[in-house]
Amino acid sequence: MKTMISIEQYLQSQASMIEQALRTMLPTEWPIPERLREAMVYSLEAGGKRIRPTLLLTAANAVQNSEQAVHNALPAACAIEYIHTYSLIHDDLPAMDDDDFRRGKPTNHKVFGEAMAILAGDALLTHAFHLITRVQTNSTLTATDLLAIVEDLSRLSGPSGMVGGQVADMEGEQGITSIAELEFIHLHKTSDLIVFAVTAGGRIGGASKEQLEQLRIYGQNIGLAFQIQDDILDLIGDEQKMGKKANSDVEQSKVTYPYLYGLEESKLKVAELTAEAKNAIVNANFAAPERLLQIADYLVHRDH
Amino acid sequence: MKTMISIEQYLQSQASMIEQALRTMLPTEWPIPERLREAMVYSLEAGGKRIRPTLLLTAANAVQNSEQAVHNALPAACAIEYIHTYSLIHDDLPAMDDDDFRRGKPTNHKVFGEAMAILAGDALLTHAFHLITRVQTNSTLTATDLLAIVEDLSRLSGPSGMVGGQVADMEGEQGITSIAELEFIHLHKTSDLIVFAVTAGGRIGGASKEQLEQLRIYGQNIGLAFQIQDDILDLIGDEQKMGKKANSDVEQSKVTYPYLYGLEESKLKVAELTAEAKNAIVNANFAAPERLLQIADYLVHRDH
Repeated sequence: MKTMISIEQYLQSQASMIEQALRTMLPTEWPIPERLREAMVYSLEAGGKRIRPTLLLTAANAVQNSEQAVHNALPAACAIEYIHTYSLIHDDLPAMDDDDFRRGKPTNHKVFGEAMAILAGDALLTHAFHLITRVQTNSTLTATDLLAIVEDLSRLSGPSGMVGGQVADMEGEQGITSIAELEFIHLHKTSDLIVFAVTAGGRIGGASKEQLEQLRIYGQNIGLAFQIQDDILDLIGDEQKMGKKANSDVEQSKVTYPYLYGLEESKLKVAELTAEAKNAIVNANFAAPERLLQIADYLVHRDH
Repeated sequence: MKTMISIEQYLQSQASMIEQALRTMLPTEWPIPERLREAMVYSLEAGGKRIRPTLLLTAANAVQNSEQAVHNALPAACAIEYIHTYSLIHDDLPAMDDDDFRRGKPTNHKVFGEAMAILAGDALLTHAFHLITRVQTNSTLTATDLLAIVEDLSRLSGPSGMVGGQVADMEGEQGITSIAELEFIHLHKTSDLIVFAVTAGGRIGGASKEQLEQLRIYGQNIGLAFQIQDDILDLIGDEQKMGKKANSDVEQSKVTYPYLYGLEESKLKVAELTAEAKNAIVNANFAAPERLLQIADYLVHRDH
């Protein structure tokens, strides 16, 4: 039996692999204006836990239990990080959240100017779809599968997915009136990209239709759990650990799950969602389910 | 022999067909926030000649000479209009060109606010890729062909395509020093999307590799001709016909082809590019080349 490294070590190794790959995904021979390339790379290399691409690679491996599947999935893993990165650049713009710093570094528009930040975001978003087409097809992974991944990515990150969630969140700042509104925001702003990550990984690994459905359930539940846990940490977290001002959401009187239901109920909800997510993985009979189960737990027990 | 309607009537009929189709491309059952949908539709329905989608449909018909091919190509034609529309919305933003009006209507951010305009642009861009996946495959048009269209769209509208041209144009406002720089801008800001339109139409119509190459040459040349013609019209046009202040580029001391080479040389260049474009179509031996030839001439002889 193979000795498993700890989940923290595993996540770290996946993040390193992804960060190396991210650099190779913008062909040097393409005629990309130098300043645009710099702006794109600046935000791609700004760090983060790389949790979405890691989930994509982990789902591919869960299905097929092979290093080849993970290797094959790398361009798609980078695609999801390109999408996530573009969304952060646009979110930080003065017209949106107007943030000067992210993860301790000046935001894209503070370094490159607003116009370039808008265009760098557009470029990252567009190039993400190119990366999906770079996944190698073979006897079991066909062009039809990649086209399904393109379809999923556009739906889950577009107007009825992540962008829709973003709009709902923005409109919600004028006052959320129901739990349904809050769940719509979480579902689309956070869960949709995570659902994309695990189902795309699943497709690349060769998942059956039933397994894809279990991955979808897993992704949706850990996405919601992740978001509520974020709101809990924001409420109770201390400034040092979070690296941002604790309670900032409360000060903005932003309505969150713990705000509506209290801390204890929220913790119960996170545990419930996590159990459902893990249950889906158990039901799917994967070749290598362990890391997906561990990631579900990790997301709940993290303190930042 | 079928009597042909005039090129003006033809372009009008294509534009009508495209405008009807544009409305059906955002599924009503998708959970898109209402205000986001309104912002997307507002700019999609803001008019224009719909020249890019028309070229896509016309190229499909040139290859296959069948109404079925044109019908089949409609979602891809709408995709290119979604891309073109998002680029206009983002171009008009205060951080970019800061335009309050486009085609006589208030720009997107003037109506919906800057944040929504950014997100509506992102949503249109993302959904364009969904529309490519909606093209029906059949025995001759395979998922591999559609994936090639996705690849082309991401390359020709991304960092080494339209967005790259946009960045070069923006940087060029600080002073273009060479004709090479100017051609880079025209090639990527204008020609790339037109090359996409005609090659995607060609692929859907079932063009051979050689025919696709001729379509690429056609697209690149009419794109450049179109841009130089625009600059000529800007230089000599009177305010009434243009609907914007004539000579506005000169006042901004923006370097253009007529600025560098003079009016007569520029007109010769346009004629030369148009001849090359038409020559490519003649070489391709299409089933129905006439409309592509007529469009090349139409773009030169237009007065607005």
